[in-house]
Amino acid sequence: MLVVQKFGGTSVGDLDRIKNVANIVKKTKERGNDVVVVVSAMAGETNKLIDFANYFSKTPPQREMDLLVSSGERVTSALLSIALQSMGIEAIALTGRQAGIKTTKDHTKARIMDINPAKMQKHLNEGKVVIVAGFQGISEEGDVTTLGRGGSDLTAVAIAGALGADKCEIYTDVDGIYTTDPRIEPKARKINVISYDEMLELASLGAKVMQSRSVELAKKLGVDIEVKSSFKPEIKGTLITKETPDMEKVLVSGIALDKNQARVSIFGVEDRPGISAEIFSKLADKNINVDMIVQNVGKDNKANLTFTVPETELELTKEVLKEYENKAEAIEYDRDIAKVSVVGVGMKSHSGVAATAFNTLAKENINILMISTSEIKISMVIDEKYGELAVRALHKAYNLDK
Amino acid sequence: MLVVQKFGGTSVGDLDRIKNVANIVKKTKERGNDVVVVVSAMAGETNKLIDFANYFSKTPPQREMDLLVSSGERVTSALLSIALQSMGIEAIALTGRQAGIKTTKDHTKARIMDINPAKMQKHLNEGKVVIVAGFQGISEEGDVTTLGRGGSDLTAVAIAGALGADKCEIYTDVDGIYTTDPRIEPKARKINVISYDEMLELASLGAKVMQSRSVELAKKLGVDIEVKSSFKPEIKGTLITKETPDMEKVLVSGIALDKNQARVSIFGVEDRPGISAEIFSKLADKNINVDMIVQNVGKDNKANLTFTVPETELELTKEVLKEYENKAEAIEYDRDIAKVSVVGVGMKSHSGVAATAFNTLAKENINILMISTSEIKISMVIDEKYGELAVRALHKAYNLDK
Repeated sequence: MLVVQKFGGTSVGDLDRIKNVANIVKKTKERGNDVVVVVSAMAGETNKLIDFANYFSKTPPQREMDLLVSSGERVTSALLSIALQSMGIEAIALTGRQAGIKTTKDHTKARIMDINPAKMQKHLNEGKVVIVAGFQGISEEGDVTTLGRGGSDLTAVAIAGALGADKCEIYTDVDGIYTTDPRIEPKARKINVISYDEMLELASLGAKVMQSRSVELAKKLGVDIEVKSSFKPEIKGTLITKETPDMEKVLVSGIALDKNQARVSIFGVEDRPGISAEIFSKLADKNINVDMIVQNVGKDNKANLTFTVPETELELTKEVLKEYENKAEAIEYDRDIAKVSVVGVGMKSHSGVAATAFNTLAKENINILMISTSEIKISMVIDEKYGELAVRALHKAYNLDK
Repeated sequence: MLVVQKFGGTSVGDLDRIKNVANIVKKTKERGNDVVVVVSAMAGETNKLIDFANYFSKTPPQREMDLLVSSGERVTSALLSIALQSMGIEAIALTGRQAGIKTTKDHTKARIMDINPAKMQKHLNEGKVVIVAGFQGISEEGDVTTLGRGGSDLTAVAIAGALGADKCEIYTDVDGIYTTDPRIEPKARKINVISYDEMLELASLGAKVMQSRSVELAKKLGVDIEVKSSFKPEIKGTLITKETPDMEKVLVSGIALDKNQARVSIFGVEDRPGISAEIFSKLADKNINVDMIVQNVGKDNKANLTFTVPETELELTKEVLKEYENKAEAIEYDRDIAKVSVVGVGMKSHSGVAATAFNTLAKENINILMISTSEIKISMVIDEKYGELAVRALHKAYNLDK
């Protein structure tokens, strides 16, 4: 079997942890597998380098930032190769360039264009463990690029796709994906199998184990991902894979809570065609990420428009909306909201899932401010102070603690 | 004018020091020069990475070591580029590979095979300061290589040669080459101009400012080097350049002291052709660096052979000579010696320089154990305890304090 294993910053956080990773890789190899390992920088290294750069400039040139921060993963890859070879395991460390990872030249947020796996394949054929510095590639100009947040996961998934690997294991500091945040609901259970789409809904909703774009790429390439813990490698993690009929038997997979949203309500704007389009275009121009949108017709041919934006983008949103202050009856901003989401592919084939959600919150006397639904998700905006209560109530209502 | 400036580890030891370097480069650029900058790793970084590797193995694989330690210079080059750009100076950081530095694949001690200066030249033509990560290049296999001790000096000299630079400035923590070690003789003066050959004799004899191989390369390529201090950049340093008739007017340029040698004496070996060759071949096979050699004929057709080796290689030397214990009357080893050398191109055209040296030591009652001379150097081995006294006496005898 060909396995790609990715180890994040805390998994390679110091020399002892790197030795631990070497042991995991050694065991995998000795079970007869071919192994490609993708590593992040040692925890704290990337931020240290960014702090260094910020000493000189708050807006350092992005090309040089990539040259700077890409060194962290190179160091880890070399150290892991040294550790493995000292244990008698043949290994070779490759940079992004050497691994054949070609990207766009969008420094600090490059996209992978192509992977030429010939060099990796050659070393695998020679029986070596191939170690790749994650998070980085090379542009057509020959410059080092980096892939942005979650870039090492992306490297691992893309390599797994290019090599036709049987499995991509993402090692992190938690042992899998849970039905909800265990700090909110101690009865949260680890999910054994979850579909790409469910994971995408959970990821974008605050389950921060994996970035959406890595899950999207895995879905596109058909790569099976197992999320597991480098601290307890013997424990089975969560498999993220394509949807099967079996999965639909489970109504709801998980409950997510997102407290980093703010609500914007514009009351009594003129209800003419194109008014919403105009407002949302202007927000998009400023790269403001609008999430839920609700529009109602009010009285006197006026409309009420409500939507959510990330809290961090609220000030910028206020600036954009300044020109509408005179055109609307009122504009209200509310930071104290939470978005609770119920996710599950089973919803597609079962009715009553939404009703259960609304009833559950009603029983707890929690007022629902906004609702938005997709095929596999129901999201509800409520007062922030009820967020945890809502999660626990919904977790119980869908029997996720069983 | 095209200037190559190289800054060593202490000159880029922290973020403030890097800012200081940026100011030096900025001034050079603003005086209308084209500037290429070669940087070392921040002081301590390379040793930190080597310690990391040694945690896993005392003999880590050299290819991975190069990938590991080369990251230090990359970080400095990116940071300096960020610093310069924040000051409004256009700059670009290049790795050894991007600077076109092709080397042999002898990892950790690669030799530069060729430099393709096209990319550097292109950026210079665009008015940019070009910053190159020192100490590293790339092999034909596409692997990162490093050049060994003093590698960043070598990078700077080789680039100066490839670009036909007018000058190569080596910035360090001393402001030039001195007539002798100022810690031994406070009256030591800074030398304004010195020939490559004199510098080579001084370098190999313990003036540790520049490695011999960088001076040799500068001589071969005809590159003028100025050694100066990044702490006092306004002060003129020492120019290392080709010999001129003017230089010969100065009898002696400097006095060097080397206390890291040991003396080996083999008494009463058979005086037949080839016996010395046999012994020195065996020492060479073990990479033992024999320096001074003296051979005398003794009585009864037996020869006495004396030579010096680095103290660190004395134990290995003893092993090699074990087989001669029965073939010689006696073998003596002496660690407590010092080599004092008088260096100057003026010796070529002036007589009496050697006599002055011998008389000076005689006046101080210092016994000379061995003598060896070249065209521009007289070396004398004496008891280690007289080393500093001999240096001070010779420094005065040749009027170097004037």
